[in-house]
Amino acid sequence: MVNTSYPIAAVALAHASRLLNHGPTVLISSAHGAQRNVMAAAWSMPVEFDPPRIAVVVDKRTFTRQLVEASGQLAISIPCRALADVTYTVGSVSGHDLSVDKFHHLGIDSFDGPVLGLPLVTGCVAWLECQVLPEAHTEQAYDTFFVTAVSAQADLRVFADGRWRLHDAPPQLQTLHHLGAGAFAVTQQVVQARKLAPEPKD
Amino acid sequence: MVNTSYPIAAVALAHASRLLNHGPTVLISSAHGAQRNVMAAAWSMPVEFDPPRIAVVVDKRTFTRQLVEASGQLAISIPCRALADVTYTVGSVSGHDLSVDKFHHLGIDSFDGPVLGLPLVTGCVAWLECQVLPEAHTEQAYDTFFVTAVSAQADLRVFADGRWRLHDAPPQLQTLHHLGAGAFAVTQQVVQARKLAPEPKD
Repeated sequence: MVNTSYPIAAVALAHASRLLNHGPTVLISSAHGAQRNVMAAAWSMPVEFDPPRIAVVVDKRTFTRQLVEASGQLAISIPCRALADVTYTVGSVSGHDLSVDKFHHLGIDSFDGPVLGLPLVTGCVAWLECQVLPEAHTEQAYDTFFVTAVSAQADLRVFADGRWRLHDAPPQLQTLHHLGAGAFAVTQQVVQARKLAPEPKD
Repeated sequence: MVNTSYPIAAVALAHASRLLNHGPTVLISSAHGAQRNVMAAAWSMPVEFDPPRIAVVVDKRTFTRQLVEASGQLAISIPCRALADVTYTVGSVSGHDLSVDKFHHLGIDSFDGPVLGLPLVTGCVAWLECQVLPEAHTEQAYDTFFVTAVSAQADLRVFADGRWRLHDAPPQLQTLHHLGAGAFAVTQQVVQARKLAPEPKD
């Protein structure tokens, strides 16, 4: 069920890659038939803005990998500080080892993506549904999937008009950047750079 | 010349990918013959820890792309808050348009990498030299290069014993995460997640 306590809006697909531009750790979810799963992934990046293409690493040992290969689809939910424990935990438990799906196992709520119906994680700050581009070689050699976003949504409190607004975000909505062993840097502060003038010649 | 005002140490190659795990914006430098260049890249990610393999997007229009293709090598310097303006600026000026190299143009100091001799940006907090793996298809289709790190170094004040120590880093050494248009989230704060217990069954 959609959590309606916060304002979600569609993000233009040409802006979808911007959601991942600053390198947040993400949650990857997938579904095939009656099965679904969710895992954490620190390793994703945009590769193009328009069309909105993304590369993401999904290890061969994960249950998510099996579902992504079977369905040709995956969803990306961008978790925030409020979900730090959930993010760490879904990255530490394999769906292979569970008798119920990981959402039920950990009491994680989800809602259906608008285009593919994939399970999106409630309480995150942005969500993308993606179709896998067929790249068998890089999937095998580097566990790297290239995907195209077909839907994008974000919590308007932190991403609006095609831009992150993390500088005045509530602390619990800051994005997570995994340093290792459950330690996450959070986007508590934003600095605005200026363009430098060329070095004077003498 | 190496800036000796801060302590740099080699990072074990098996830990090199950890330097990029939290999604920092990086500087990509390259050299071929007498030519060299440096650009900013928000789009990079590890794809494997050991061997330390990384994927990085280098647009076809950049001068860096030309040098990387000619040399089969690139270096990654991880800039910090003190270099926010430099990072924004090198990402806004093309080496194609300059009569001198971009280091000289902007007064950016560099030092030679220990294995490949590539120009590493002084004042950054970590550095990797990388050999390009031959992946012509993804280079063409997605501007994505897969590389293997052959040297890794870090500023001991923020990365030691294989781990980032950003929680007590001096503010100027926080890493940068580009949100767009020169706005960077910085790693000012670190949270420690805990693993959740499974949802009780009833």
